[in-house]
Amino acid sequence: MFNQKRIRDYGVKIGKLEPGNLNAITDVEGVAVGHVTLSDKQMQTGITAILPHQGNTFKEKLIASSHVINGFGKTMGTIQMAELGTLETPILLTNTLGIGTAADTLIDYMLDRNPEIGRTTGTVNPIIGECNDMFLNDIRGKFVKREHVLQAIENASVEFMEGAVGAGTGMLCYSLKGGIGSASRKMEMQHGTYTIGVLVLSNFGILSDLRVTGKAIGQELKEAITQAYQEEDKGSIMIIVATDLPVSERQLNRILKRSVTGLSRTGSIITTGSGEVIIGFSTATKIPHEKPQRLLSVPTIHEEDIDLAFRAIGEATEEAVLNSLVTAEAVVGRDGNTRPAFKDMVEEFNISLV
Amino acid sequence: MFNQKRIRDYGVKIGKLEPGNLNAITDVEGVAVGHVTLSDKQMQTGITAILPHQGNTFKEKLIASSHVINGFGKTMGTIQMAELGTLETPILLTNTLGIGTAADTLIDYMLDRNPEIGRTTGTVNPIIGECNDMFLNDIRGKFVKREHVLQAIENASVEFMEGAVGAGTGMLCYSLKGGIGSASRKMEMQHGTYTIGVLVLSNFGILSDLRVTGKAIGQELKEAITQAYQEEDKGSIMIIVATDLPVSERQLNRILKRSVTGLSRTGSIITTGSGEVIIGFSTATKIPHEKPQRLLSVPTIHEEDIDLAFRAIGEATEEAVLNSLVTAEAVVGRDGNTRPAFKDMVEEFNISLV
Amino acid sequence: MFNQKRIRDYGVKIGKLEPGNLNAITDVEGVAVGHVTLSDKQMQTGITAILPHQGNTFKEKLIASSHVINGFGKTMGTIQMAELGTLETPILLTNTLGIGTAADTLIDYMLDRNPEIGRTTGTVNPIIGECNDMFLNDIRGKFVKREHVLQAIENASVEFMEGAVGAGTGMLCYSLKGGIGSASRKMEMQHGTYTIGVLVLSNFGILSDLRVTGKAIGQELKEAITQAYQEEDKGSIMIIVATDLPVSERQLNRILKRSVTGLSRTGSIITTGSGEVIIGFSTATKIPHEKPQRLLSVPTIHEEDIDLAFRAIGEATEEAVLNSLVTAEAVVGRDGNTRPAFKDMVEEFNISLV
Amino acid sequence: MFNQKRIRDYGVKIGKLEPGNLNAITDVEGVAVGHVTLSDKQMQTGITAILPHQGNTFKEKLIASSHVINGFGKTMGTIQMAELGTLETPILLTNTLGIGTAADTLIDYMLDRNPEIGRTTGTVNPIIGECNDMFLNDIRGKFVKREHVLQAIENASVEFMEGAVGAGTGMLCYSLKGGIGSASRKMEMQHGTYTIGVLVLSNFGILSDLRVTGKAIGQELKEAITQAYQEEDKGSIMIIVATDLPVSERQLNRILKRSVTGLSRTGSIITTGSGEVIIGFSTATKIPHEKPQRLLSVPTIHEEDIDLAFRAIGEATEEAVLNSLVTAEAVVGRDGNTRPAFKDMVEEFNISLV
Repeated sequence: MFNQKRIRDYGVKIGKLEPGNLNAITDVEGVAVGHVTLSDKQMQTGITAILPHQGNTFKEKLIASSHVINGFGKTMGTIQMAELGTLETPILLTNTLGIGTAADTLIDYMLDRNPEIGRTTGTVNPIIGECNDMFLNDIRGKFVKREHVLQAIENASVEFMEGAVGAGTGMLCYSLKGGIGSASRKMEMQHGTYTIGVLVLSNFGILSDLRVTGKAIGQELKEAITQAYQEEDKGSIMIIVATDLPVSERQLNRILKRSVTGLSRTGSIITTGSGEVIIGFSTATKIPHEKPQRLLSVPTIHEEDIDLAFRAIGEATEEAVLNSLVTAEAVVGRDGNTRPAFKDMVEEFNISLV
Repeated sequence: MFNQKRIRDYGVKIGKLEPGNLNAITDVEGVAVGHVTLSDKQMQTGITAILPHQGNTFKEKLIASSHVINGFGKTMGTIQMAELGTLETPILLTNTLGIGTAADTLIDYMLDRNPEIGRTTGTVNPIIGECNDMFLNDIRGKFVKREHVLQAIENASVEFMEGAVGAGTGMLCYSLKGGIGSASRKMEMQHGTYTIGVLVLSNFGILSDLRVTGKAIGQELKEAITQAYQEEDKGSIMIIVATDLPVSERQLNRILKRSVTGLSRTGSIITTGSGEVIIGFSTATKIPHEKPQRLLSVPTIHEEDIDLAFRAIGEATEEAVLNSLVTAEAVVGRDGNTRPAFKDMVEEFNISLV
Repeated sequence: MFNQKRIRDYGVKIGKLEPGNLNAITDVEGVAVGHVTLSDKQMQTGITAILPHQGNTFKEKLIASSHVINGFGKTMGTIQMAELGTLETPILLTNTLGIGTAADTLIDYMLDRNPEIGRTTGTVNPIIGECNDMFLNDIRGKFVKREHVLQAIENASVEFMEGAVGAGTGMLCYSLKGGIGSASRKMEMQHGTYTIGVLVLSNFGILSDLRVTGKAIGQELKEAITQAYQEEDKGSIMIIVATDLPVSERQLNRILKRSVTGLSRTGSIITTGSGEVIIGFSTATKIPHEKPQRLLSVPTIHEEDIDLAFRAIGEATEEAVLNSLVTAEAVVGRDGNTRPAFKDMVEEFNISLV
Repeated sequence: MFNQKRIRDYGVKIGKLEPGNLNAITDVEGVAVGHVTLSDKQMQTGITAILPHQGNTFKEKLIASSHVINGFGKTMGTIQMAELGTLETPILLTNTLGIGTAADTLIDYMLDRNPEIGRTTGTVNPIIGECNDMFLNDIRGKFVKREHVLQAIENASVEFMEGAVGAGTGMLCYSLKGGIGSASRKMEMQHGTYTIGVLVLSNFGILSDLRVTGKAIGQELKEAITQAYQEEDKGSIMIIVATDLPVSERQLNRILKRSVTGLSRTGSIITTGSGEVIIGFSTATKIPHEKPQRLLSVPTIHEEDIDLAFRAIGEATEEAVLNSLVTAEAVVGRDGNTRPAFKDMVEEFNISLV
């Protein structure tokens, strides 16, 4: 997308399934992604918004689920998602200390569009994910403001940038620069062709653990780089998953859990030090906010169809992580802290990824 | 049922909703219950089978869920139920040390009826619940045998006995004789009238905690009885729930969790010492074992319909516990251990339940 | 406390155990509670802060756990609490749409007191609970501001008001005015005497379901009141639990789950329509933020001691709910919406609670 | 062990940490493993017992936890393990339809050694795991009998066989012969050196997904083998974890969850079709069955020590899976069904694993 060189452009092919048209989460129809990037000296942060569909998400909710891989994080909104099985707002990603502002602004955004909230109907459940960008960003500065949140939502489109953008501006991945990455897979079933898309906010890993389709590229790079860039892994990743596959909340949850296979294959050991949370939704069914007179009818796949989705999410997660790494530019941030770009290292030390 | 005097026959009315025709779990069409009672001196135990529908449960599975109130128990089969959201066998209740025999026999029962298991399709997930009847029963004797398990299944019918029968033969409730109890509630919704039925195997509580529609009957009885019957509460109850309400696994799970309100209103503090597990299923949708060519379509209520089911399960659970207590006959068992019947105490000490 | 007439002052005695000195959560040494009440016409809301101990909670964390009774709520911070088993901030309660402001301010409060956050150590996990006060409060007005949050924390003391104060200002309980209530119980064990304290923010129930020690006071009141005050139950309660009992996270979680017994005994059926979440902590062990050179040693009770805590939390929860109800003054709020005070009704219609 | 050629003997080195002396679960002091192998034509099955310590496990329980990766399985005993956080019996692994017999026999084994069970104290919670060996074994034959179960326990020793032995006799792995595998890692911390050991019963995967330290060996083999050995992946693995690291139940659970990183790195996509369950225990603390007069004191690591254990379990799981594959001999079983040995294929097609 947008002419960034992605992992496939290095000849790396992940898995067995075909990606969608953009090879991005936005291959799922209706999904849009918007960034606001705040990058200036000490300030290396931002916000990313994922819109699940183009209508009113409060009035037409989507079946949704979440899964905590590692809970040392501050993700908001998953309690209600688990109880009711639905998503009713855009999903926001930002830095850890920005969750209050993000939540408060998303509440206002929803109030504006739904005058019945707090009057004739109940409240609204904002979904906010976060990673800690304190190494490159002066996170105590709390640079993400109300206007940035709203702008990220307004910026949402089908094509979007990856790497050091939006919430990914100050994030690290395998001791190099990380951030936003995406990928998708198509699933051919008897009753139709479906798509699963993944967007990650990567902020985890130490260099020597990095693997590209199994190859120990991280170790190779570590030996090549004389300067020591590694630091303690703080182990954080947000994984957002969209699909048009007709699934129940339970089935969706099963699929989400499998994203850890792709994450693991890039080399992660899932360290203790920050949150790793998966949030996903299916656009196949819209659940009305208002109770209809009749029963709902929810189309779902038979359980025996689900392995294809398990394979798809693993592949898409693995590729999205690598895209977040390979598209990110080097950043110099807080107190001169810096992280090189993977792509620069690969070029400088003439590393073959295949 | 079967001319046993139940709690309603004492003028006690639980809650606001109307019971079904039998005021039992078998008011849900297709559900049947069978007992084998083993009562002879040291042997005070048995087995109870709940058949979820009259067809082949392996080939036509039901949406199912379980919830652990207290996990100090050995209930089998809930891991798969949580993953797949389905029930594929009858449910068996017996004493704690009988679970191996019950499981092994239920496996054979399913193998007999489904020759494709282990050949052209996978295996089968037996569901076994248990309480510990060691006070009245020589539980180390392991009296429940293969033939009893099969007979309990064969005995299953719409009308069934309550109290000191089947798995309830040796169980205690509020320091008196407990065992099997059942109740049901009807739910009128815009799109139809539905039923929820509960069957309990009660084995918990100390006398002084017992309440009947709020009245501190247990304390009253304790003061009347000169002899001390109380012992440490081992806190065990199995709660089986059937409904014909069209629900997803998630919705069913939400309903099941509310049975604890009824349990609490009888006086339980949910002590540590044994398992309290709820297992429930909905007969509204049959999930085929074999994958069809097309998507499934699962009818479900809108979430705003669910409060009626929450009220219904609380009421039915409260009444089922009291039915287990009020129908049970006194038993003298292992080493002369004995528990009086609630009904005998109420009569002897002239206690008014209303 | 503070000369409010509480449920015991009506001759109502809940359960078998003795309360602590204040019969409040602050009987657990170190715990303090502060309110800011915002009550003026359309504005009927506020904030309540619970301080878990008097030191630096970030540097000396407490073993903590949470349990979701009903997840239709927006409580923040429980993912990390589940993963790490610790509490590192005060706990804030406010209205549903105030969580963003509360979280953002609590983050700033913690940053101020811990300059190493975001520099030499990671971030901080704010704990915010909420109920929806939209019936009496213009919740869309978002009246809770930064200064209120900080003031509530500063106001914290051992004695505190109950009823229509702080976060409870605009809340309902059993169709009457509800809000903040508290109670405690002492637990005598072989190795010491311990206390468990509960603070509730009540906002649930319909009048006809209300029971006071089993007596159907709600039904009695409903028949007495000609005017109809009832509305749909939105089923929300936050339950904060403090104890000095030495427990593991697992044991604490087991205890927390039992608060539902007390809640149920007041008449709740746990409706779908808002969040019911329990958050608890033990002051018995302080977990240092910085890794020591040696192993930690965590004192815990043996599991066989735990039933006393199960009884205590049920009793304290039941009494705290009734205290929230009986201490609350009548409120006229948004658009003239009003809820009478339970105490006024009881007096007007001459209802005996015992 | 026992002169079987293991994955290290092919020059393959997994990860960064050093293995223990035997590179097996039995490197954790006190742990022993015993097999009974039933291999004769249609009968290709068996049982494997893991003894957690050399004393009386009922009287001296171990802190324990479990985690379900995929719940399409029949593992028994995890409900109580979650509630109480302890293990009180040996752990048995067998085929899916053998769980009833295994449970019943393990109950008897425990009754024999603990005459107070069912008399002066409660019952016992048997832990049984299983995979489905129906491809090579006539699983409907139910060949595992009482005497085999007892013999497996009696056979337990520090050195044990891997591959097509015990419960692994009829299992598949990546479309080749799988079964039992083990590995261990040492963890050097400031306060001591600890060991984590893993034993797997592997029964999952399709050939083309297999990776050995990232290398796509499965794809290479698939292209080399003209005959098609692949079939649908039924995705089953049991992972037993032992450690002497002092941890709480919560910490142990966090560690167990990370075994999925190692599993994923061998190529698994975690298909729907059978159970993948991790059961683990720590030998660092013995929890007495009888309540002492004083508080317990449980030594635990600080959370900041835990990443080393996360790395260790991932490495040990990856290596244990590969050991199960590389040690297994070819088997011809039910109806002539057969699976070749990985080691034979590697040799025949001259595949380099490094």
